Amino acid sequence: MDIDLVVTWQEAERVDVSGRVAVVIDVLRASSTIVGALASGADRVLTVATVEEAREQAAKLGGDRAVLGGERDAVKLPGFDLGNSPREYTPGVVDGKTVILTTTNGTQAVHAAKQAQAIIVAGLVNADAVVRWLIARDLDVTLICSGTEGRLSIDDLHCAGLLLSRLLEPGFIPELKDGVRLAIQWYTANAGSALHVLQTCYHGQRLIERGFDADVAWCSAIDMFDTVPEWDGEGFVPSRLVSG
Amino acid sequence: MDIDLVVTWQEAERVDVSGRVAVVIDVLRASSTIVGALASGADRVLTVATVEEAREQAAKLGGDRAVLGGERDAVKLPGFDLGNSPREYTPGVVDGKTVILTTTNGTQAVHAAKQAQAIIVAGLVNADAVVRWLIARDLDVTLICSGTEGRLSIDDLHCAGLLLSRLLEPGFIPELKDGVRLAIQWYTANAGSALHVLQTCYHGQRLIERGFDADVAWCSAIDMFDTVPEWDGEGFVPSRLVSG
Repeated sequence: MDIDLVVTWQEAERVDVSGRVAVVIDVLRASSTIVGALASGADRVLTVATVEEAREQAAKLGGDRAVLGGERDAVKLPGFDLGNSPREYTPGVVDGKTVILTTTNGTQAVHAAKQAQAIIVAGLVNADAVVRWLIARDLDVTLICSGTEGRLSIDDLHCAGLLLSRLLEPGFIPELKDGVRLAIQWYTANAGSALHVLQTCYHGQRLIERGFDADVAWCSAIDMFDTVPEWDGEGFVPSRLVSG
Repeated sequence: MDIDLVVTWQEAERVDVSGRVAVVIDVLRASSTIVGALASGADRVLTVATVEEAREQAAKLGGDRAVLGGERDAVKLPGFDLGNSPREYTPGVVDGKTVILTTTNGTQAVHAAKQAQAIIVAGLVNADAVVRWLIARDLDVTLICSGTEGRLSIDDLHCAGLLLSRLLEPGFIPELKDGVRLAIQWYTANAGSALHVLQTCYHGQRLIERGFDADVAWCSAIDMFDTVPEWDGEGFVPSRLVSG
C-alpha cells in the first residue's frame, strides 16, 4: 500500500489520485460534520461549491427532504437551516434527510479528489473506522489535508498523523514520502493532545474567537463514530464496508 | 518580529508578503548555488524563469561577463556553461561575473516574493549569516520553502526549522503559526542529522539517483558561508548587512 499526503486542497489539484483512495480530511469542521450527519441518520450528504448551487439542490429535493447547511468564514449562511457546526446535525434534524453542505475548504478538497477510485471522509471522530476501511480496501492511499485559507493546517495534519500511526506497523517504515514523514513526526510528538492541538492551531483559534469552542472540542473526540462517508458519484453515503 | 512560513512557492503566491522580509529557501539546490556563487566572487546572480530569457540576458551581457547556469529536471541545459550543481560555481569560473540562473523552483519562489520589502536567500550553508541578518533588520519575516514539484519538501522545511530554532529564544513561544510550529517540531526531532535528512527526502533521493550525491552532501553543510544574497531589484548581490 503506497501512501501519499498533501497539505492543502490546492496541492491536491497538482497530484494524480487516479486508481487510489482519496481520504479527505477537514477536521475543523467539514469532515466532522459529514461524519456526524451520516452517523445521525442522514441518508446522504451532498457537498457543493457555491451557495447558489446549494439552494438549487434544496429546491429540487423539496423542503421536507433537504437540510441546507454550510458556512462562509465560519458563519452560517442566511436562509440556511444549519451552519457548519457538527453539533447541530442531530438525529431529530437530519434523520432520513439529504444534507446539502457548502463549506469553504472541505468541498474544494472533494472536488480536487474527483479522479480517485474512491473518496472517503476522515476526521478524528471516525479515525478507527477509516483505518479499518483502508486496510479492508487495500488500495494506494492519498491523504488530502484540506488546509485553511490555502495554507497548511495543523488540525488536518494531526488527523493524518493519527491515521498513519495506525496504518503503518510499528517499525515498518516503507519509502515514506516527505509529507507522510512530517505528519508522523508531528503526531508522534503530540499524540494524546488532540484537544490541545485543535485549540491552539490557527483554525481552532479562529473558531474559538467566534464562539465555537464546543465545536473544537467535539471535533477532537477520537473514534466517536463508526461511520465512513463514501462518495457514491453524487454525494457521501455511509460506506457498508465497515459500518454495521 | 512576526514569523510566517509557507511550504511551497505556490502557497507563497496566496500570501501577502508586503512590508516583510521574504526568505527564499530551496536547499536542493538553487539556494545553495546562489549563496555559493556569490561567496565565490560572482558580482550578481540573476534568477530567470525561462531558458529563453536566460539566453537573452547572457547575450546582452556578452560572453566574457556572463555565466549561464541552470537545470530542468535536475539536468544541465544544452548550451549552458553550468548546471545547478553548486560545486561548479568556483572562483575560477564565476569571480567578477554575472551568473544567470534558471531553476525549476527557486526562480518561481523569488517571483512569488516580489512584493516583499526585502528578499534574501537561505540554505543550510549560510544559516547563521541569515539569522544574524534577520535580527539586524528586525522586520516581520516570511520563510518561503520552495518545495519540489509543487509539493512540500523536507529539505526546505529542515532549513526553515534550523533558522527558526536559532531565531526563537529557547522557551519563548510567541503566537506561532501552524507551519512554523511544524518546522520547529521537525527540526527539533532531527537536529544534527542534516545530511541524513537531505539524503532520505524525496528531492535528495532523486538527485542521488541522477548521480548528484556530492551535491546533496555539499548542500547539507551548515554555516559554510557568511554570505547573504539580497535582491537589489534586478538580481541577488551579497548583502553588506552581515558580510564583511
